[in-house]
Amino acid sequence: MSLTLYYAPGACSFVPHSLLEMAGATFEPQLVKLHKNEQNSPEYKAINPRGQVPVLVVDGKPLTQIVAIVGYIDARFPQAGLLPTDPFERAKALELLAWMNNSVHPTFTHFFRPEKFAAEHSTQALIKSHAATSYKPLLQELDALAARAQAEGRGFLVGDSFGPADAYALVLLRWGGFAGHDPEGFPALWAHVQKVAVLPGVARTIERERLVLNVYKPA
Amino acid sequence: MSLTLYYAPGACSFVPHSLLEMAGATFEPQLVKLHKNEQNSPEYKAINPRGQVPVLVVDGKPLTQIVAIVGYIDARFPQAGLLPTDPFERAKALELLAWMNNSVHPTFTHFFRPEKFAAEHSTQALIKSHAATSYKPLLQELDALAARAQAEGRGFLVGDSFGPADAYALVLLRWGGFAGHDPEGFPALWAHVQKVAVLPGVARTIERERLVLNVYKPA
Ligand SMILES: N[C@@H](CCC(=O)N[C@@H](CS)C(=O)NCC(=O)O)C(=O)O
Ligand SMILES: N[C@@H](CCC(=O)N[C@@H](CS)C(=O)NCC(=O)O)C(=O)O
Repeated sequence: MSLTLYYAPGACSFVPHSLLEMAGATFEPQLVKLHKNEQNSPEYKAINPRGQVPVLVVDGKPLTQIVAIVGYIDARFPQAGLLPTDPFERAKALELLAWMNNSVHPTFTHFFRPEKFAAEHSTQALIKSHAATSYKPLLQELDALAARAQAEGRGFLVGDSFGPADAYALVLLRWGGFAGHDPEGFPALWAHVQKVAVLPGVARTIERERLVLNVYKPA
Repeated sequence: MSLTLYYAPGACSFVPHSLLEMAGATFEPQLVKLHKNEQNSPEYKAINPRGQVPVLVVDGKPLTQIVAIVGYIDARFPQAGLLPTDPFERAKALELLAWMNNSVHPTFTHFFRPEKFAAEHSTQALIKSHAATSYKPLLQELDALAARAQAEGRGFLVGDSFGPADAYALVLLRWGGFAGHDPEGFPALWAHVQKVAVLPGVARTIERERLVLNVYKPA
């Protein structure tokens, strides 16, 4: 089985990237430079016609969508314990992952890529500022989850071991910094993210992506 | 095991609703009247604080998010074959489901609920019309998938048996009618949806939800 992961530094591809590292998988990391628009090159579009990261190529066959890639990594590396095995607990873990993926992440996309949602520049500016504002209560929900995990003596957002929600939380809180939200304003989440960041596989991912966790700049 | 499904007619809850029916599950269907804002009543918010359908309550414990609910139904009713069992094929099925859920469905939400994305009425109107336009190529992608399934002699969007993508396709094409897209403009998809609609479990769901499939009204 050969695995190649197409990723971009700091993008949502961090989720499968860090999961592969935490699972001890052998894989080829392939950098896609979004700022150079490499995701829209004919070569890349042959792999993913939607021009996005992540893509996990399994024996030459591309797989997209974080939720699907996470399920596949879990199936291939069950010993890593990335998702719970009990069907209901597993579904609850996927509920959190799906919400991050279909609600929190897209809210940031409205801030980062408002041109996807309207043609006029003035409308884009309004969508952008609305999204920056809407993003805050979502980070607060994640902060409450981190606080609950801490209160229950658990080191992770779901159950007792590292999983996709922990990796996604790191990405989403980091993005918050770009949208004007100081990570210090979400103390339990920020503490959680800093703890997750030093797990060996996560730390290797951060190093390869050359990420600074706190990108917030006070106005 | 007791199962209760909170659903609203024609909403995305149609996906788990029809899957439960197709799996022959015993469950209690609970109607939530979105037009009466029942999803925001204190009683309902105690079940789902986000005020949305679907919720599947399993032995008193609520589970939200279509992707998570689908995985759970599949785990509970494996004989229904709702998702492939091969890990990669399964991941490909979830890739399609995730894309419908995080891209196609949210595009329609911009048409249906533009107030989520901007405060000003004029901005909302622009977001709404932009979304109606963006929705068309997404339905065309689904139409191409249906055409390919047909060309390959498969009766379903993924593999050889009914699954969540078939149910979601029905919902998404039906919504297209509200956004001004004639289902006849997507002939392979429309044929597919009409075929899926007469499967006994799907037909029972349509009957309970009292759905008309083609809601398009020429201008
Ligand atoms: N629904 C996709 C979202 C992927 C996505 O949003 N990728 C972004 C980076 S976080 C991307 O590649 N953007 C590049 C672009 O849109 O040009 C998933 O879950 O994998
Ligand atoms: N991400 C959720 C989306 C659920 C959703 O969008 N539900 C809509 C109906 S399709 C709803 O309940 N809307 C009511 C409202 O927003 O007030 C999922 O995948 O289950």
